[in-house]
Amino acid sequence: MNNILVVGSVAYDTIETPVQKKEFILGGSANYFSLSSSLLVPVRVVGVVGDDYKSSDLEMLKERNIDLAGLQSVPGKTFHWVGKYEDAMNEAITLETHLNVFEQFNPQLPEQYTSSDIVFLANIDPELQLKVLEQVESPKLIGADTMNFWIQSKKDKLLDMIAKIDILTINETEARMLTGEFNINLAIQKMAQMGPKYVIVKRGEYGFIAYDKASDEMFVMPAFPVQTIVDPTGAGDTFAGGLFSYLSCLNEWTFNDIKRACIHGSVVASYTVEGMGVEKVKDIQLSDIQSRTTDYLKIIQVGNHAKAIEEVTSKSAHS
Amino acid sequence: MNNILVVGSVAYDTIETPVQKKEFILGGSANYFSLSSSLLVPVRVVGVVGDDYKSSDLEMLKERNIDLAGLQSVPGKTFHWVGKYEDAMNEAITLETHLNVFEQFNPQLPEQYTSSDIVFLANIDPELQLKVLEQVESPKLIGADTMNFWIQSKKDKLLDMIAKIDILTINETEARMLTGEFNINLAIQKMAQMGPKYVIVKRGEYGFIAYDKASDEMFVMPAFPVQTIVDPTGAGDTFAGGLFSYLSCLNEWTFNDIKRACIHGSVVASYTVEGMGVEKVKDIQLSDIQSRTTDYLKIIQVGNHAKAIEEVTSKSAHS
Repeated sequence: MNNILVVGSVAYDTIETPVQKKEFILGGSANYFSLSSSLLVPVRVVGVVGDDYKSSDLEMLKERNIDLAGLQSVPGKTFHWVGKYEDAMNEAITLETHLNVFEQFNPQLPEQYTSSDIVFLANIDPELQLKVLEQVESPKLIGADTMNFWIQSKKDKLLDMIAKIDILTINETEARMLTGEFNINLAIQKMAQMGPKYVIVKRGEYGFIAYDKASDEMFVMPAFPVQTIVDPTGAGDTFAGGLFSYLSCLNEWTFNDIKRACIHGSVVASYTVEGMGVEKVKDIQLSDIQSRTTDYLKIIQVGNHAKAIEEVTSKSAHS
Repeated sequence: MNNILVVGSVAYDTIETPVQKKEFILGGSANYFSLSSSLLVPVRVVGVVGDDYKSSDLEMLKERNIDLAGLQSVPGKTFHWVGKYEDAMNEAITLETHLNVFEQFNPQLPEQYTSSDIVFLANIDPELQLKVLEQVESPKLIGADTMNFWIQSKKDKLLDMIAKIDILTINETEARMLTGEFNINLAIQKMAQMGPKYVIVKRGEYGFIAYDKASDEMFVMPAFPVQTIVDPTGAGDTFAGGLFSYLSCLNEWTFNDIKRACIHGSVVASYTVEGMGVEKVKDIQLSDIQSRTTDYLKIIQVGNHAKAIEEVTSKSAHS
């Protein structure tokens, strides 16, 4: 079992969806990632919070086996994101970003974190992602995510970071923005050339594409069709948390393992979107995931269709 | 082998995409459907053209084993659609619709068509779809498609039509418009209540959802990831053509057959989008389809992931 370190935002979010509005609820990429990961493996968090961070939130995270030794607490206010979703809730619209304590954040890893096996650089300033990565001695596997804001404002640093990682997880809109390619296949090719061995494009309710540079192979899957989408915030980070925690259970990684890890991540993410903020993901159990994985595999099960299709089309009138 | 009758538009299209622009090229839902179907089974077309319809187009269709006895030729101009696509080419923007000879069209089936086994009511005025359906004696299987224009302008007639069919194929935006439900699962439930046994939601580059009302089961699949999308026009109609021609090769239809038929349709559609208008679909051979089906099944092959995932998650730290 490999241990995982994540650096990312730890935040309070104010979110409005067509369904409801909540103010100052627990959020941030590192929190979503670690709540998801902790279903399979303990996870170490690097981040910063202000003195307004609630002890009840710290307790909840610790109870989920999340190691907060790397979470600095400093005077000031915790990072605050204000966003909303419209209609089909496919895209977050940022209304306000208050970096607060993140403006002066200089990550210093606790001694015991420097030997982490797996590192995930969740969405945050790429300079901070690089600073954290430099402090880990010899990680076996490095993953990262980013967002439109950094693609526009710090592209050079972002490319430095992407050159150093094994697995890039990124959403479809950001993939197009980062590469200037509208066709998602071409965008994936370009991103793979930037460094990563694997590129995972997150497509929200449409699922994901996983790409293996070595074999030039793809794996394309839909998302689990959720009956009620309450709030998509954190779906991508819980997807990544599921993906990397699954990989942490293995000692070497083939593309088949990446595929399975993506399916696991996709199932965890399907729970996240059913509640506001971390409401749902903080309470799910591994048994919930296992049960929905069975349902998910059923709706995507192609089974022996290959043989049947070949038989039917070969018998047709014109062959 | 069951025979298929299709009624739909037969048109000249003027199409502009970010890639290129073509004027007055062969198009129309019935043409795309029949070119696709004819890969597996001869197909009978009901429609109308003006005296500007080119004999070379008639010849090309006949050479593909398409029966044009039901295609009326009348004085005037052939239906002309002018549309464009932007950016990711996910949605057609209609610039001009010239119904021309379709304004006075009163479909009269040739005697030999009235005993057709499978009827597909491709996108066209729902009143015309109903008129055609009334003339077929005892069809074994009825499918239909529609578009935003008819949902807005002739919803009552459209619902009359949908109540009479077995399989509805519809795109995601239209499904939302028809039902008033943004969540696609809820939209599917509502559409199934309108009559059809099966509802197939087409999601463009994101693939399709097939729903079986009897078992309340879903099958969700991505599209084949095409390297170069030249023109998405007709993708939905060629998908339907592939779907129904596949079903025509069988004598009874289970949900597994519907799944396989959708995969076949999806593969045919992936060729359509690689050329302007019918450019690509008119030349593909069954061997092309079989080869791409193999590639497609590879990118969606879940294989024995179920067992692997269960093993990994069961061995995790917390279980």
